[in-house]
Amino acid sequence: MFLSNMDKAKLLTQALPYIQKYRGKTVVVKYGGNAMINEGLKEAVITDLVLLSCVGINVVLVHGGGPEITDMLNRIGAESKFINGLRYTDDTAIEIVQMVLAGKTNKDLVNRIQNIGGKAVGLCGIDGGMIKAVKLDDGVNDYGYVGEITSIDVSVVKDTLDKGYIPVISTVAMGTDGNPVYNINADIAAAKIAVAMGAANFILLTDVKGVMRDVKDEDTLIPVVQIDEIDELKKSGVISGGMIPKIDCCVDALNGGVGHTCIIDGRIIHSILIEMLSDEGIGTMFIK
Amino acid sequence: MFLSNMDKAKLLTQALPYIQKYRGKTVVVKYGGNAMINEGLKEAVITDLVLLSCVGINVVLVHGGGPEITDMLNRIGAESKFINGLRYTDDTAIEIVQMVLAGKTNKDLVNRIQNIGGKAVGLCGIDGGMIKAVKLDDGVNDYGYVGEITSIDVSVVKDTLDKGYIPVISTVAMGTDGNPVYNINADIAAAKIAVAMGAANFILLTDVKGVMRDVKDEDTLIPVVQIDEIDELKKSGVISGGMIPKIDCCVDALNGGVGHTCIIDGRIIHSILIEMLSDEGIGTMFIK
Amino acid sequence: MFLSNMDKAKLLTQALPYIQKYRGKTVVVKYGGNAMINEGLKEAVITDLVLLSCVGINVVLVHGGGPEITDMLNRIGAESKFINGLRYTDDTAIEIVQMVLAGKTNKDLVNRIQNIGGKAVGLCGIDGGMIKAVKLDDGVNDYGYVGEITSIDVSVVKDTLDKGYIPVISTVAMGTDGNPVYNINADIAAAKIAVAMGAANFILLTDVKGVMRDVKDEDTLIPVVQIDEIDELKKSGVISGGMIPKIDCCVDALNGGVGHTCIIDGRIIHSILIEMLSDEGIGTMFIK
Amino acid sequence: MFLSNMDKAKLLTQALPYIQKYRGKTVVVKYGGNAMINEGLKEAVITDLVLLSCVGINVVLVHGGGPEITDMLNRIGAESKFINGLRYTDDTAIEIVQMVLAGKTNKDLVNRIQNIGGKAVGLCGIDGGMIKAVKLDDGVNDYGYVGEITSIDVSVVKDTLDKGYIPVISTVAMGTDGNPVYNINADIAAAKIAVAMGAANFILLTDVKGVMRDVKDEDTLIPVVQIDEIDELKKSGVISGGMIPKIDCCVDALNGGVGHTCIIDGRIIHSILIEMLSDEGIGTMFIK
Amino acid sequence: MFLSNMDKAKLLTQALPYIQKYRGKTVVVKYGGNAMINEGLKEAVITDLVLLSCVGINVVLVHGGGPEITDMLNRIGAESKFINGLRYTDDTAIEIVQMVLAGKTNKDLVNRIQNIGGKAVGLCGIDGGMIKAVKLDDGVNDYGYVGEITSIDVSVVKDTLDKGYIPVISTVAMGTDGNPVYNINADIAAAKIAVAMGAANFILLTDVKGVMRDVKDEDTLIPVVQIDEIDELKKSGVISGGMIPKIDCCVDALNGGVGHTCIIDGRIIHSILIEMLSDEGIGTMFIK
Amino acid sequence: MFLSNMDKAKLLTQALPYIQKYRGKTVVVKYGGNAMINEGLKEAVITDLVLLSCVGINVVLVHGGGPEITDMLNRIGAESKFINGLRYTDDTAIEIVQMVLAGKTNKDLVNRIQNIGGKAVGLCGIDGGMIKAVKLDDGVNDYGYVGEITSIDVSVVKDTLDKGYIPVISTVAMGTDGNPVYNINADIAAAKIAVAMGAANFILLTDVKGVMRDVKDEDTLIPVVQIDEIDELKKSGVISGGMIPKIDCCVDALNGGVGHTCIIDGRIIHSILIEMLSDEGIGTMFIK
Repeated sequence: MFLSNMDKAKLLTQALPYIQKYRGKTVVVKYGGNAMINEGLKEAVITDLVLLSCVGINVVLVHGGGPEITDMLNRIGAESKFINGLRYTDDTAIEIVQMVLAGKTNKDLVNRIQNIGGKAVGLCGIDGGMIKAVKLDDGVNDYGYVGEITSIDVSVVKDTLDKGYIPVISTVAMGTDGNPVYNINADIAAAKIAVAMGAANFILLTDVKGVMRDVKDEDTLIPVVQIDEIDELKKSGVISGGMIPKIDCCVDALNGGVGHTCIIDGRIIHSILIEMLSDEGIGTMFIK
Repeated sequence: MFLSNMDKAKLLTQALPYIQKYRGKTVVVKYGGNAMINEGLKEAVITDLVLLSCVGINVVLVHGGGPEITDMLNRIGAESKFINGLRYTDDTAIEIVQMVLAGKTNKDLVNRIQNIGGKAVGLCGIDGGMIKAVKLDDGVNDYGYVGEITSIDVSVVKDTLDKGYIPVISTVAMGTDGNPVYNINADIAAAKIAVAMGAANFILLTDVKGVMRDVKDEDTLIPVVQIDEIDELKKSGVISGGMIPKIDCCVDALNGGVGHTCIIDGRIIHSILIEMLSDEGIGTMFIK
Repeated sequence: MFLSNMDKAKLLTQALPYIQKYRGKTVVVKYGGNAMINEGLKEAVITDLVLLSCVGINVVLVHGGGPEITDMLNRIGAESKFINGLRYTDDTAIEIVQMVLAGKTNKDLVNRIQNIGGKAVGLCGIDGGMIKAVKLDDGVNDYGYVGEITSIDVSVVKDTLDKGYIPVISTVAMGTDGNPVYNINADIAAAKIAVAMGAANFILLTDVKGVMRDVKDEDTLIPVVQIDEIDELKKSGVISGGMIPKIDCCVDALNGGVGHTCIIDGRIIHSILIEMLSDEGIGTMFIK
Repeated sequence: MFLSNMDKAKLLTQALPYIQKYRGKTVVVKYGGNAMINEGLKEAVITDLVLLSCVGINVVLVHGGGPEITDMLNRIGAESKFINGLRYTDDTAIEIVQMVLAGKTNKDLVNRIQNIGGKAVGLCGIDGGMIKAVKLDDGVNDYGYVGEITSIDVSVVKDTLDKGYIPVISTVAMGTDGNPVYNINADIAAAKIAVAMGAANFILLTDVKGVMRDVKDEDTLIPVVQIDEIDELKKSGVISGGMIPKIDCCVDALNGGVGHTCIIDGRIIHSILIEMLSDEGIGTMFIK
Repeated sequence: MFLSNMDKAKLLTQALPYIQKYRGKTVVVKYGGNAMINEGLKEAVITDLVLLSCVGINVVLVHGGGPEITDMLNRIGAESKFINGLRYTDDTAIEIVQMVLAGKTNKDLVNRIQNIGGKAVGLCGIDGGMIKAVKLDDGVNDYGYVGEITSIDVSVVKDTLDKGYIPVISTVAMGTDGNPVYNINADIAAAKIAVAMGAANFILLTDVKGVMRDVKDEDTLIPVVQIDEIDELKKSGVISGGMIPKIDCCVDALNGGVGHTCIIDGRIIHSILIEMLSDEGIGTMFIK
Repeated sequence: MFLSNMDKAKLLTQALPYIQKYRGKTVVVKYGGNAMINEGLKEAVITDLVLLSCVGINVVLVHGGGPEITDMLNRIGAESKFINGLRYTDDTAIEIVQMVLAGKTNKDLVNRIQNIGGKAVGLCGIDGGMIKAVKLDDGVNDYGYVGEITSIDVSVVKDTLDKGYIPVISTVAMGTDGNPVYNINADIAAAKIAVAMGAANFILLTDVKGVMRDVKDEDTLIPVVQIDEIDELKKSGVISGGMIPKIDCCVDALNGGVGHTCIIDGRIIHSILIEMLSDEGIGTMFIK
């Protein structure tokens, strides 16, 4: 692709209305999946976030880190065990989860942001008492140190934004029932943070194109889903498996007052910018 | 030109380092010539300025308005007379100059900025006592109400930026020698405002490509001129005629501490963005 | 009149309770008529406003400019045409209206304020998107570019006051129906600005003594009119002709929450100070 | 004296340039003598100060209270004894001095200011550690608890002004040499406070017309005295007796950077306003 | 008592939860009785208040001064007369009350606070118009210049705290019925100030251990009294005499929204710290 | 030890002068050694820091974490290797160092602070670009990813304090020579942070009593060492081994302008409070 400087300038100005729309507003991005593994995607995500922050949008980055946790558990000879899609988190696992998420994944992201001229601070749910949790109890299984959020206090997130930094958040929580730390599902935490922040936008990066009528055919992407269609889509199997909890998070965010909620395809380079700064959007948007 | 959203996003991110470089800094743009007449160019200039303002750059717009003044003088049956390139400004002319510059050209620019979602306030040198002047006296000619600047107080410009507006400035000055108003050369006023603002960048829009070794051959553009080369370039006739005072303004700006000074071709669409947000720049840059 | 310094000092202290009453409050003055033409009156009005501003009152000056518009139209050979007291504003007229009001009358007032040590910024309804309007449609006549206000945003007025300037406002509006600019009745705009500002005081300068039982006998001035008497006064012809729309503006201001509203005689020197800083007042005050 | 409202308004506007000159500046007034005893003068002084404060001047009032102290000492059967013009202050006297100055004179002044709509706080040199002193030792006499200032900290004065109050100050100091409290000469304290405040104006109210060539002939008032003339005037006896320490205070204020220093006649009603808000001034001004 | 530094440090850390509980909150202490006379107690009270202020608690000190008033009245040969426990305050008495409270007791307390490194400003009800009152009229007796509070404006108290000072308040009020000054019961004033400040804590120092079942047996102290038990306790004589108005003040404070109200024994050294920084408390606490 | 509440209160007030001395000042504590391992000591350190923060001192906590790093390396089967007292940090080790320090040790400390009611944010040298480093090159050995600090930017530390949090800092740095992350000696980083913060106090917790004349006899502790004695003490072997770099850090802090620098015995419970809030201090203080 060869473009003259004039063409490039014209393209820049096309982003103006979108920048004006989101300036001074908050967007919470849940970052995970392939976009966190593939180097090119990673670089593009970080650049997108720094650009959005640079034009005056309050960017909050919430991340997971499953593969790195699994890898580190392997290295110390511990096994990863999942129940209903949740990592069973024993004494060893919770220590590794905290170390990897808050010490490695989190600070690596901060490092990347700082490296391209952005400003970031790496937080976890413990900092400033942001996320408090108790042991998850579904009445059936024991998930170990998997927590259920009891309260969210986003003061520390606001303080960080207020001083001009992108808060990068790993979802380890303070326990309030005697256990010091809990492992929290990052999608759920991100949605709750978006609600508590009064975010204008909640974006969930996934490894699929969005909600598709035929999961095998990407051309059947449904670009907009009304909240009250969701039950039907679940019954018909269009929304199934791992998509169910993700879409429940979107619904919670919308119901909690977040203006604009969507699932986008993290495998597409610059998917965040495309979603934020164009009319077409990308992935599936949920509306009330 | 067809571009995918992904290509567009990639292009946006290429602007990031330039935005980071100028964020929170001040750029003074002297706007005049063709770019103020041609509708497409006009629209592009305004869009460029709003975009720059929107990404956190303090944009100050200083404008001329010669053709509109001439036109209005014609309509009331008065003639335009020039001495050494300066408009001889009699009682009638100064009234028309003030009305057209401060009432028409200025507020039309504000109107355009507001129309595309920007925020602007139209000022002239009288507002807040910004520009003070006495009658220009070169010992030879009488130019009528053409003034020579005696002081610049940019408090009102800073106050306007501070509240989030683009100050749009017409260069009519308060007289301090008994005459209430003076007509001030916009290039000179813009350069002095740039110095007083401690601007990082002073951009002078012209109707030529820049300084050219052979004025008839645009391929002979000199992209960078060292201040101490200028005398030589004047002697050799490379810099001549109407370019001389413009380049003198650039030199004054540089000597007054403005970081980056250039003459760019206002006939090129989005020339301001190209100059600010790419490495190549456009036109001729002056350096110390 | 010869007064000792001691007498002068005593007089100054008599103003104290009135200054205390209005300190930190906002007063909107609609300036027009003879007080804008007679040099002595003009000087007195400006001095009054600067004094009020200097003792801590937020002064907002809204002005008309009919005679200067008519004069300029004459000079370009265009005719002034009025329908129901409103200037029929064609393509030529709207251009002249904007130029004269925003470029000449407005900036001349700013110049005078600055000259006696005050601080002012000249605004029109376009600046900061202050006044938005559509074409006035009374179902009967075509008034050309005479506008009807659709919204008032006084942010730019507050920002200007906040930085210590007297905002001087000409009532040209941004069009939101395709036409870029509209000519707005200054009385109406001033009243709406007073309401939007939560003004404590709205003063309308006129060329009559106030509301008079017998319009030919100034001794029949009615100093205070209750809002619910107005209909009766209109029916009986006491309020008639050009006074009707002016008094309607006062009523709108009162109903919109402005504390104190009056019509005063601009032909009396220092009428604004007399109204603000004495018990007797001057002209006719409207109360609920 | 009968004046129309128009005349009154005209007179008000004559004060404008003086108000503009002192706005935002600090004036320290030393209040004492007849002006503190005569009811009419008292009322006028208070009104003057509230008016000056109301138009944006930072007024600091420092007061003495000799007659009230003498009176209270009489009531408890104690005698007033003076050495070199200083009150010999024994155990009983210092208790009475503090009570009368800080509890009676001071709070009565605050009461009067509040009563006419001003805002005031009554301070003494103890509050916020403003004035610190040791026992005065001139090597000759024992003055008891008469103190010599060792440090002035005007933070509490600035804090009080900052919150919009007139600080009213009685000059009782904290002892730093074991004795808790000292009696401080109010003229000296006022001059030092003026210096520490960087005051624009220091006004010392006295019971004489100013410095007079012939002390018995008020027509021989010297309106302006150059600092370097003072020695000569002392030698020749023009400045003598109780005037010497007062004029020394003025010199100290001037040398300490106070812009404008004068001795005025407190027996003239509104002498403070006349001094501040007219060209002629009143009394004797000292200049460098 | 010998303690190692380590033991001392441990004790300090035991105060942490109490400091955390009150940080940024306001506590109003009514200071009177023995604790104002005994030197050791006095020193301890002042130290307690400075310490509380130093750890970030907003301390407001309201004081009485009966014995010093009686003493000064004696010295001028005037007699102290009480009606229903209130000092009959004639012309002479009100002058002495103001002088002693606002000039002596008050400034002596400020002096002590400053001496141990605290920051204080001495105020009375006149300063900033804090306490306004009319003549107390119970329909039976004439109490002279004993006042009944008509309004409390704690702006000056907040302004003083805001600048980092401990406001020390003597309860002399501005009269609004023609008499300039009134003598106000300090308990009542303190309770009303606590309510107006939205205090977290109102502590009334007394000369008894608290409310005791048997007034002669300190072991019968009732540590907590429910508001609705009070009537019963009055009827049974447990609460009687001088305790009645004090407890009524506590009830008023509680009903006015003060969080925590108690009567403590001022004769116990450091009783304020013990009350604030331990679980046991001291004296009698009133709860709803 | 049994103490009455009165005794406890008295002890609290003894801390007042020390609190007054350090209020609003910054103290940097380097935390390591036994005090980070022993549970009781850990709890005491955290309580001390929260108490200091609570009374208005700006506490900055810099920590090491050697034993936890060694332990985690063991668990993944990697060996810990030291050269000249520095951990040789290969690819595996640097990953573990970052994870353990920034993810485990750091966030565990934050968790403890939050748990007792303090507010903390866990940072590492990457956050906000605080610590930048290149590969340590002593010309002799290869230490792998052990870094040498090239710049310190404490903006993020100040921003964190400014919002009321205790910054807890692990000393992992951003690489500026191609390697993303470096392992930094915590003593060195802490000293440099203290200098950059303009700290009043730099406290280095160690596992010895301080500098001792006879390292085997704690009674030979030298409480104060003059900077210029240090060379002599090194030569004579009094300062030797691991103490040398620690004392060099103290000297660097002192030379960099830190007011007060000391090495204290972290094995003594509440050693920080004892050092800060008593006259005797503890350990060895270095002075110029």
